[in-house]
Amino acid sequence: MKTQTLNIDLGERSYPIYVGRGLLDGNVVAERIRTKRVAIVSDETVAPLYLDKVRAALPGASDIVLPQGERHKTLAVFEHVCTRLLEAGAGRDTTLAALGGGIVGDITGFAAACYQRGIDFIQLPTTLLAQVDSSVGGKTGVNHALGKNMIGAFHQPRAVVIDLEVLDTLPPRHFSAGVAEIIKYGLILDAKFFAWLKDNIDALMARDADTLTHAIIRSCEIKARVVERDERESGGHRMLLNLGHTFGHAIETAAGYGRWLHGEAVGCGLLLAAAYSCELGCLENGEVETIRSLLESAGLPRALPLDLNVETLLDNIARDKKNLDGQYRLVLLKKIGEAYVEDGVTREQIARFLEDTRH
Amino acid sequence: MKTQTLNIDLGERSYPIYVGRGLLDGNVVAERIRTKRVAIVSDETVAPLYLDKVRAALPGASDIVLPQGERHKTLAVFEHVCTRLLEAGAGRDTTLAALGGGIVGDITGFAAACYQRGIDFIQLPTTLLAQVDSSVGGKTGVNHALGKNMIGAFHQPRAVVIDLEVLDTLPPRHFSAGVAEIIKYGLILDAKFFAWLKDNIDALMARDADTLTHAIIRSCEIKARVVERDERESGGHRMLLNLGHTFGHAIETAAGYGRWLHGEAVGCGLLLAAAYSCELGCLENGEVETIRSLLESAGLPRALPLDLNVETLLDNIARDKKNLDGQYRLVLLKKIGEAYVEDGVTREQIARFLEDTRH
Repeated sequence: MKTQTLNIDLGERSYPIYVGRGLLDGNVVAERIRTKRVAIVSDETVAPLYLDKVRAALPGASDIVLPQGERHKTLAVFEHVCTRLLEAGAGRDTTLAALGGGIVGDITGFAAACYQRGIDFIQLPTTLLAQVDSSVGGKTGVNHALGKNMIGAFHQPRAVVIDLEVLDTLPPRHFSAGVAEIIKYGLILDAKFFAWLKDNIDALMARDADTLTHAIIRSCEIKARVVERDERESGGHRMLLNLGHTFGHAIETAAGYGRWLHGEAVGCGLLLAAAYSCELGCLENGEVETIRSLLESAGLPRALPLDLNVETLLDNIARDKKNLDGQYRLVLLKKIGEAYVEDGVTREQIARFLEDTRH
Repeated sequence: MKTQTLNIDLGERSYPIYVGRGLLDGNVVAERIRTKRVAIVSDETVAPLYLDKVRAALPGASDIVLPQGERHKTLAVFEHVCTRLLEAGAGRDTTLAALGGGIVGDITGFAAACYQRGIDFIQLPTTLLAQVDSSVGGKTGVNHALGKNMIGAFHQPRAVVIDLEVLDTLPPRHFSAGVAEIIKYGLILDAKFFAWLKDNIDALMARDADTLTHAIIRSCEIKARVVERDERESGGHRMLLNLGHTFGHAIETAAGYGRWLHGEAVGCGLLLAAAYSCELGCLENGEVETIRSLLESAGLPRALPLDLNVETLLDNIARDKKNLDGQYRLVLLKKIGEAYVEDGVTREQIARFLEDTRH
């Protein structure tokens, strides 16, 4: 296939998203780098698979290999990246290349945001979730024991290079996690895309090349347009991308980082958001079931598991970044293809809903 | 005296700098805060003196008191601020008020830059150095064992409130440290201001109200104009503010954080920069002696102390953020009132100069 290019237009912070096969060891990685020095940041799982390939595209680059998994998305690992850069004498004339999934991308991006008060970075996402979501839009950061992504920065990459070849080695659980975010885009903003997903979910899960390419490109397009309109989540618009994430983050934090994949928790969160929207009289029961069935076809959980404590979930929801003036905010659905922000939800309302949904 | 206001014009990130007496418990602190919640961040030394006063201006504010001193300007203390904010349930609708010297301001500003990917903060500087330099311009961050301010962000405050009353309790050593930065402004950009300082140094050191006010306002004006032209140090212009800082940071790091005050090290760095400029044939010997004598009148060191190891200094200079492509960069003086960036200096040249200057 020919490489396709999407642009994300943010003035002087604009950048291209390349989508194609065999891009990791090609020219597109090198051509967006404007510094002499490059450090590739990867993790234990991805480095053995793709580090040599990327090194071939970036001769002379140094590398930093991080421990794998959400429980290592910490300030300590972020500091380790900075230490390694300082030891290598890296100056502001260094670009970081984030080679890995969302965790590597988030830590690397945050290191790029803060190292010497900001250096360049590029995203080389190796999971479906990172390709359709976390690598695009400049949200970077690490977790705190008290909440997901509580320490971070908005820092846009210089490019996102999506090599579809890496999906050939992606384990099914991780593939499903990425599909959760793809379904999210249909739900929040594009009923037509949601309908297409419903019709093509089997081909997508079979990783049919054309189906997968369309799903990735459409997801990136939707994300790019939202980020262009509200880069720093200062208006309400970018918040819509958080559909399923309030519940999802609470599940991840309550279960212990790393027990659930982010995308799995988001999948469950989408279902809860849909069910709560139904309770408020927006969605119909049939629509909730359509969503449940699509998530199930994508290999995602079809209900909130019983082993999670509701009080713990509520405490985590209370620390959600969207909350304002002590009141809870949820992204919900008016209908399939149209998300909105519901203000002033109370803890009691969510508690009752979560208890009900388990019976 | 009447409160004076300077504006720093950075588009949507513009903000006022207020200079006056008795401002900490007045309206100006509260009137620039646009969130419901406020957390005051201070340190062990400043809190007993001024925390109650600021609390009076910001009813309902919570507070976080940090350990005092440069050796606590660390990622661990930054994390502590984030933890305290999370424990208090602080959302994005929280403003941090940095009440203290440069260290409190830098840590608090960095916490504001990164907490939930960015919240508001205001600067309430309580040292002369913070008032004329570190509180203005949005440089925030913490130290790394391998270098000063190596982890940080550009994040502009919503206001800088300079209450001259706090200088009444400032110890002489800290006062001198602030005067070093004031002298720097004259040296880099304003020969007339430098001449005025020479004529008025005794009144300034005696903390004469009018002299002090003029020195502070002129310093803030110069800094504001430089920052407006080059907010993120992406051009060479803002780099000029680093006159004396390459040597100064190397001295601070080599001596161990906290042994020297930042301003003392900068004072010594100014002298070294002047002497090196003279060696390159820019400044004349007489001018170097004028600078040395002014620094001495300000209670600052008149030479590089003998107990610092030259190799350690050079290693620290090698990690300076201004360096490019492995070559050293120094801010030097063409003449008094005109600084410039000297590229391509070698380690050997600096080594020879440092050895010579000690004999």
